[in-house]
Amino acid sequence: MGALRRRLTRAGLPGLIVTHPADIRYLSGFTGSSAALGVTRRRAQLFTDGRYTAQAAAEVSAAQVQIVTGPPAVAAVQWLAAQPGVEMAGFDPSHTTVAELARWRSGLPSHLRRSFLSITGSSPNGSSLLESLRMVKDEDELHLMREAALLGCRLFDHILKHLRPGVAELEIAAELEHQARRLGAEGMSFETIVASGKRSALPHGRATTTPLPRHGFLTLDFGIIHKGYCSDMTRTVFLGAPRPRERSAYQAVLKAQQAAVSAVTSGATCMEVDEAARGILCEEGLGEAFSHSTGHGVGLEIHEPPRVGAGQKTRLEAGMVITIEPGIYYPGEFGIRIEDMVAVTRAGHEVLTPAPKALIEL
Amino acid sequence: MGALRRRLTRAGLPGLIVTHPADIRYLSGFTGSSAALGVTRRRAQLFTDGRYTAQAAAEVSAAQVQIVTGPPAVAAVQWLAAQPGVEMAGFDPSHTTVAELARWRSGLPSHLRRSFLSITGSSPNGSSLLESLRMVKDEDELHLMREAALLGCRLFDHILKHLRPGVAELEIAAELEHQARRLGAEGMSFETIVASGKRSALPHGRATTTPLPRHGFLTLDFGIIHKGYCSDMTRTVFLGAPRPRERSAYQAVLKAQQAAVSAVTSGATCMEVDEAARGILCEEGLGEAFSHSTGHGVGLEIHEPPRVGAGQKTRLEAGMVITIEPGIYYPGEFGIRIEDMVAVTRAGHEVLTPAPKALIEL
Repeated sequence: MGALRRRLTRAGLPGLIVTHPADIRYLSGFTGSSAALGVTRRRAQLFTDGRYTAQAAAEVSAAQVQIVTGPPAVAAVQWLAAQPGVEMAGFDPSHTTVAELARWRSGLPSHLRRSFLSITGSSPNGSSLLESLRMVKDEDELHLMREAALLGCRLFDHILKHLRPGVAELEIAAELEHQARRLGAEGMSFETIVASGKRSALPHGRATTTPLPRHGFLTLDFGIIHKGYCSDMTRTVFLGAPRPRERSAYQAVLKAQQAAVSAVTSGATCMEVDEAARGILCEEGLGEAFSHSTGHGVGLEIHEPPRVGAGQKTRLEAGMVITIEPGIYYPGEFGIRIEDMVAVTRAGHEVLTPAPKALIEL
Repeated sequence: MGALRRRLTRAGLPGLIVTHPADIRYLSGFTGSSAALGVTRRRAQLFTDGRYTAQAAAEVSAAQVQIVTGPPAVAAVQWLAAQPGVEMAGFDPSHTTVAELARWRSGLPSHLRRSFLSITGSSPNGSSLLESLRMVKDEDELHLMREAALLGCRLFDHILKHLRPGVAELEIAAELEHQARRLGAEGMSFETIVASGKRSALPHGRATTTPLPRHGFLTLDFGIIHKGYCSDMTRTVFLGAPRPRERSAYQAVLKAQQAAVSAVTSGATCMEVDEAARGILCEEGLGEAFSHSTGHGVGLEIHEPPRVGAGQKTRLEAGMVITIEPGIYYPGEFGIRIEDMVAVTRAGHEVLTPAPKALIEL
């Protein structure tokens, strides 16, 4: 909350309305689904409804809690407008719908409707005030993200024992998710991807009833949630003995992935990291098959700024956590993706997902 | 798509931009995470990125597919503006952020920036064009929702065998979710609620490491996703032998729940259904402890219109599917909630979740 208030002061904003659940959790600790937070330079007040009375009392530390019967955000905007010295309040245009903004305005006294709510100044890379704050993790957050990522690695290790021809992709996903719960994960951070054989050419191939093949790649892309923080990792393994073309394609993706990891350092731009992977795949004649960007930020949400892709000028800073996940896809044939979570440090980087990346043949 | 076009004609809209994933799935079959759909009275075009080339070709039937490198929605708006006879296009203010709208506008030729995009006319109850379309399910959808709800009932039946004092709530959630996968569910429709003993007083009590008590209520609120459609049900059981006050509180909630189910019929308003439950809990002196509304619509999303609460004037129509879930909560003591999924029929209603509701003592 202190860092936010410094940014508010710098932006000349006397107040801020926060409605995005991950931002509310970040600032106040509250994890309920329906809430709004009003922040001024002196006070912070969380608005939620009667379902969350007990939960808010237990979770919220940095704000006062007020239970309301109507929409929490309308109450928060009205509260902000009634605070002395608060003649305007910022809102995040990326997490406010056109309909919400109209509703908030209609709850204000008529002389404030046009002027009171103002888009928060966004940083040079286009992310909002809270996004840019959350982009750089503190030590406590890094600790939780290390734990989350290691839990992911333990899951990969566990699931290897279950991979054999004939087992349905869905059964693999079920086993992985069950084990995640057993190890204490709060849930998965996104729908588990288990894509085998030709289906590995689908970058987002959800698990289906397809049985694992005798010969072919298998891509596992999954993440868990640990104390609110997301993990994300991908490994591609091989069932059977790969042909020379399959093996060399894997080696190329691995080389590209390692090059991008090596490029991660405080001060580098995201486009430089992307280019490190893309350059190698282009050299190998595989550039066309790399149809997405190299990675993304991760934290309380599975996709956060910065984006690690072509043209992204955001400079990496110590404390940022990003994924590095180049992949190549040949529809009807096969696909390969390798992904690590990487924390930016002052001296370079720290790979949070130390699971093996040499091609595993099963 | 035909029904949508009739509504567009009625609303005098020559074009529509659709970006909400559930709406895109509903109209085109596409299940990817990044897409936009442009619809005119004659054509429909789906825009997505290179990750989804193969998936879009496999899934999309009612629209042409175009792979783009930039934001799909910007491409869709530009496409709409280039269609002959399309001098304006509607967008859904509830699923368009202030930032997105600005980005879409900046992609248009300058003479169209102010005038081209227009908020779609919303129905009397405030839901958008697509929400009101999706609110009434057709026979194919009802079939899938029946299957989803029955899968939920089988899970409840399965999990009863695992409930005993000392087992962690998280282990119950893990077993339930594993079994859901085994039975073919694509995933859970929301984070499974397993709230035991005093924690049953948290209406949204996620599963924790708390062991199930020897004496107390246990609330299980969960849902699965089956071919895109969500199920949702809650049962509260008792571990040990309930005291008279616990038993009579349960009977009151059950009576309220049954009264609200009985009130579901084509032509009734949502507030009448809410009042059926609320009236009984008030009569029993438990009205204060019923701190939320009676239910909500469910379908491709776990929360959809209509809302079944005080003041909600939407009239039920055959084909709508809603939840009926009154509950009472005594912080520090206990809570009870009972929830069914109910389809509105011409003659009355059909309960989609026929799992037993008499108090189960374990």
